[in-house]
Amino acid sequence: MPREKVTVVEVGLRDGLQMLPKTMPTANKVAWLEAERASGVQHFEAASFVPPKLLPQMADAAAVVRHAKRHSDLMVSALVPNLKGALAAMEAGVDMLVVPVSASEGHSRANVRRTPDEMVMEVRRICEARDGTNRSTKIYTGVATAFGCTIQGGVSEDEVVRIASGCVEAGADEIGLADTVGYANPVQVRRLFDKVKKAVGARINSAHFHDTRGTGLANVVAALNSGIRSFDASLGGLGGCPYAPGASGNIATEDLVFMLEAMGLDTGIRLDGLIEAQRTLSTLLPGQTFYGKVAAAGVPKNHMS
Amino acid sequence: MPREKVTVVEVGLRDGLQMLPKTMPTANKVAWLEAERASGVQHFEAASFVPPKLLPQMADAAAVVRHAKRHSDLMVSALVPNLKGALAAMEAGVDMLVVPVSASEGHSRANVRRTPDEMVMEVRRICEARDGTNRSTKIYTGVATAFGCTIQGGVSEDEVVRIASGCVEAGADEIGLADTVGYANPVQVRRLFDKVKKAVGARINSAHFHDTRGTGLANVVAALNSGIRSFDASLGGLGGCPYAPGASGNIATEDLVFMLEAMGLDTGIRLDGLIEAQRTLSTLLPGQTFYGKVAAAGVPKNHMS
Repeated sequence: MPREKVTVVEVGLRDGLQMLPKTMPTANKVAWLEAERASGVQHFEAASFVPPKLLPQMADAAAVVRHAKRHSDLMVSALVPNLKGALAAMEAGVDMLVVPVSASEGHSRANVRRTPDEMVMEVRRICEARDGTNRSTKIYTGVATAFGCTIQGGVSEDEVVRIASGCVEAGADEIGLADTVGYANPVQVRRLFDKVKKAVGARINSAHFHDTRGTGLANVVAALNSGIRSFDASLGGLGGCPYAPGASGNIATEDLVFMLEAMGLDTGIRLDGLIEAQRTLSTLLPGQTFYGKVAAAGVPKNHMS
Repeated sequence: MPREKVTVVEVGLRDGLQMLPKTMPTANKVAWLEAERASGVQHFEAASFVPPKLLPQMADAAAVVRHAKRHSDLMVSALVPNLKGALAAMEAGVDMLVVPVSASEGHSRANVRRTPDEMVMEVRRICEARDGTNRSTKIYTGVATAFGCTIQGGVSEDEVVRIASGCVEAGADEIGLADTVGYANPVQVRRLFDKVKKAVGARINSAHFHDTRGTGLANVVAALNSGIRSFDASLGGLGGCPYAPGASGNIATEDLVFMLEAMGLDTGIRLDGLIEAQRTLSTLLPGQTFYGKVAAAGVPKNHMS
């Protein structure tokens, strides 16, 4: 019987790096991508198209995307906070635009100086701009702080459903829910994905979990039970939380792949190759703290992939 | 509506400490227990009754148990690998004996120089010895390496069911399944707990997960779905794996409590107090690596307990 496929999206080149004080040279980003691609990873969120003054780490976004796109089998996405970034990302050749829309007004204002509804309007503008080209670029919106927010605390589930529905009406091809700050728990994850799915149907197909409080993989299982089959992760769990020094960020790609494969799902990724890629990354970032656990523990003797 | 209760058993004084090269003074063990008790933890696996020559860390087992039992509200258990340890633990006044029975023959021979069936016989001898006293000491057997083994790789699920059933027939009051080496995944956890439950009924009520490969809390959720309501954990995730330097051990008590409470379950434990206890423990063990995540990240703004 063929195993059910699950997509693992490596977001470390964007979400993992953006917290680092030191800019990673383009050649090292490329070395990271190549090492991980060799293990079978096929979808990379490779950069963020934002003003280089705000985020020098992402000044080479176009160069990284162009390198990645030399591999025709790779799906390459990039984060774009606005129309200007979207145009630049399309020009660079991305396959998918990732537009973050925060469900928390406090987080949205702090992050992009716009309300959630203004961001939904921006999604519409981006969709219209894409439609005005002959490009087939996909537009994905990630509903950020969907499970709570370090600024305002709780986030209403009705508001998450409303924003998600607004993004779909604005033209987004795909949407996902993001636990930007690591507040989510499995009961909440199952409930909220089910609610949003009821509102927008199959367009919700992705989850982005942080492991800030250790619940990342438990939340993945809850989202799997809601039918979600695409998960963001960062190699070595690289990243962090701007509000909590020492706290971890994204779930670790290698731990996610270990768990999914052990559960009988097919990620298309070889765990030993991914652990090798993690070691490559750790040589590129000496002294950096990593949070993934499988790399230190090793592949189990009874592991199949 | 009253929230459903879940028991969290602090096993760090036994499973967390036994990996440490340096012996923790009794006074520090007591300080740890008191700090954690103050947050609401009511069940401690406080020591291991083994020959002090083999494990100097546990030479003060009776003293630690006697201190803990000064609190009449505490449930105090101790690990005993054989009848001799069981007699000493009962003498010290434990409420519960924890007898490990490995489902992996390779692990069982390496760990206690006995086959699994010989250990089931030892459970019977321990039960008979208890019955010969007028004590109400409970006898719990933890089926170790139930989800795989670093020595022999896979462990047959039929064998786990057979050993669990054997322990119940031998007189064990309660049993649990332990992922001693961190191989388990949520699909396997759900399947195996359901199988054992079918064989032995309500006597299986506890799970012991290691977070060696990051799946510990995901496995807790799977066991919750099988009706399990008691979980072992170690404060700060203290501990490790003798076969993998740098690898983590038990799931962290504070992360477990965060997740369970966030899911709407009632542990009776205050998360902020538990984080304080973790800080106390880290001052008692300077330089020690801890693996829990909530302590660094902080309690979420929308957390209730």
